[in-house]
Amino acid sequence: MTEFELIHRFFSGLDFGPSTRLGIGDDAAILDIPPAHSLVVSVDSANEHTHFSELTLPEVVAYRSIASAISDLAAMGATPIGMTLALSLSEQDPLWLRSFSEGVTKAVYAFGCPLVGGDTTKGPLSISVTVMGTVPQGFGLKRSGATVGDLICVSSSLGDAAAGLQLELGTLFAEEHPSCSDYLLDRWSYPQPRLALGSDLLNSATACIDISDGFLADLGHLLQQSGVGAQINEAAIPISAELISVVGRAQALQLALSGGEDYELCFTLPSSVAVPEGCSVVGQIVATMGIRGLTNTPVRTGFQHF
Amino acid sequence: MTEFELIHRFFSGLDFGPSTRLGIGDDAAILDIPPAHSLVVSVDSANEHTHFSELTLPEVVAYRSIASAISDLAAMGATPIGMTLALSLSEQDPLWLRSFSEGVTKAVYAFGCPLVGGDTTKGPLSISVTVMGTVPQGFGLKRSGATVGDLICVSSSLGDAAAGLQLELGTLFAEEHPSCSDYLLDRWSYPQPRLALGSDLLNSATACIDISDGFLADLGHLLQQSGVGAQINEAAIPISAELISVVGRAQALQLALSGGEDYELCFTLPSSVAVPEGCSVVGQIVATMGIRGLTNTPVRTGFQHF
Repeated sequence: MTEFELIHRFFSGLDFGPSTRLGIGDDAAILDIPPAHSLVVSVDSANEHTHFSELTLPEVVAYRSIASAISDLAAMGATPIGMTLALSLSEQDPLWLRSFSEGVTKAVYAFGCPLVGGDTTKGPLSISVTVMGTVPQGFGLKRSGATVGDLICVSSSLGDAAAGLQLELGTLFAEEHPSCSDYLLDRWSYPQPRLALGSDLLNSATACIDISDGFLADLGHLLQQSGVGAQINEAAIPISAELISVVGRAQALQLALSGGEDYELCFTLPSSVAVPEGCSVVGQIVATMGIRGLTNTPVRTGFQHF
Repeated sequence: MTEFELIHRFFSGLDFGPSTRLGIGDDAAILDIPPAHSLVVSVDSANEHTHFSELTLPEVVAYRSIASAISDLAAMGATPIGMTLALSLSEQDPLWLRSFSEGVTKAVYAFGCPLVGGDTTKGPLSISVTVMGTVPQGFGLKRSGATVGDLICVSSSLGDAAAGLQLELGTLFAEEHPSCSDYLLDRWSYPQPRLALGSDLLNSATACIDISDGFLADLGHLLQQSGVGAQINEAAIPISAELISVVGRAQALQLALSGGEDYELCFTLPSSVAVPEGCSVVGQIVATMGIRGLTNTPVRTGFQHF
């Protein structure tokens, strides 16, 4: 069986969702858009050596690549309707492809986002995912709406994925805490984009961004585009007990502030609005530009793409 | 100036079109879909060494990559509303990037398709383009509707791009015919997806596909999905005078039948419908599966992805 046939076999049947009018197999797919809705679209890529190592499970490579793109939809408050996947592969390794396709399948079902287009080419390993979703016309969470007095919230504990990546790369060890280690690795391997929360925030949040580069880096983008600053309450930043067990409190805070790839949401709410369950208020928007309230200047500010 | 800043500089201002509600710079872009229209989406990738050589002008690499994806929209009869571009780059070469961005800019304007999302990563050179367009709900040219008696048509001369590619690679020479050589190289470098024709065919064609792999290969896909066969009139296949001048009549026919990347449309029309201007009738749909009427079995049947 050629690689082409394997791809057809492993990836078939993932193209149908409530919006799919025509799936894979023609020149293009056709998707229905609900009346009075707009299309939301974003693209994200991952390359071997840059975004994952040659030891990363192909299933995890696939799942994380898709989750990272889907998280951009969550940050806009969009509901996924479909995605395309461009895969560049250098070797004909059926088992690699099988494991990769299982990651794709898991992601398709976890995020309710059918795979409506794909292209496979020969070349060094690289994955590019374009995700499409919808929001009611005139809606969509931007980075630019935060106003002085708004509460700054995050959707869950931060820093876990950064520690998980160190465990994955073998630069951090946690033999004494096997269950904590599993938890942190899982947080890195299978991020859970906050689609339901993003959708709920459409009527209440003034600004929103997903935490991919690191809390301070991404909050910085939100502040810059809103033209405001932030007063942070460092003690309120949610940190998991697992992360503290493995790296200690001081390092945990550093990872929470600057470690990337958590794919949690950072959003701002008018102080009159109830904070969604599970979310933490970590500061407040102020007029003076910049981020205040940190006891130490963090060492690293987020993932560097180049 | 870092590569990241260069990309921002070279690619800025290409994101606004009639459908763009929110351009590049947030977590995702937002596009408006006309009422009672569906979304059409397709992805296409190109890698160095597989789809172009290291001598191909970056402007051409960009233009062709986008044209090839846009051609899938043309084959569906869709009108473009936006695209995303994932670019993997290994070296920081500002001039390469400048030339590449000029190809992107030309394509954005030529096809009326704004660039609404991009992601640049470090890695071996690779380009992936996801295009989005719209068709009126319930419309969209499929490969599967061809019916016995339908006329088989192509939109313009075939084989030119395949000869252009040989000229580009230096495996074909045409010093005695400089203007023909320029024409053929141009047909390969700057393909013109038939967007207007595709749109016009929405109400008349029974099936449609774009010729990317080669006429016989792509007609074969259309026939297979329609469950019919074809009687071809070889003498009616449109071949340019330029192609005949450079490679002779016999080789020209081979390239027209089997050379890929022309990005012309191959479509079927009920015999009662007028054939659009500039298009040629090259055969008729018959009940017996397969393709008949060829004097020789072609050597190569289209571009092999793996």
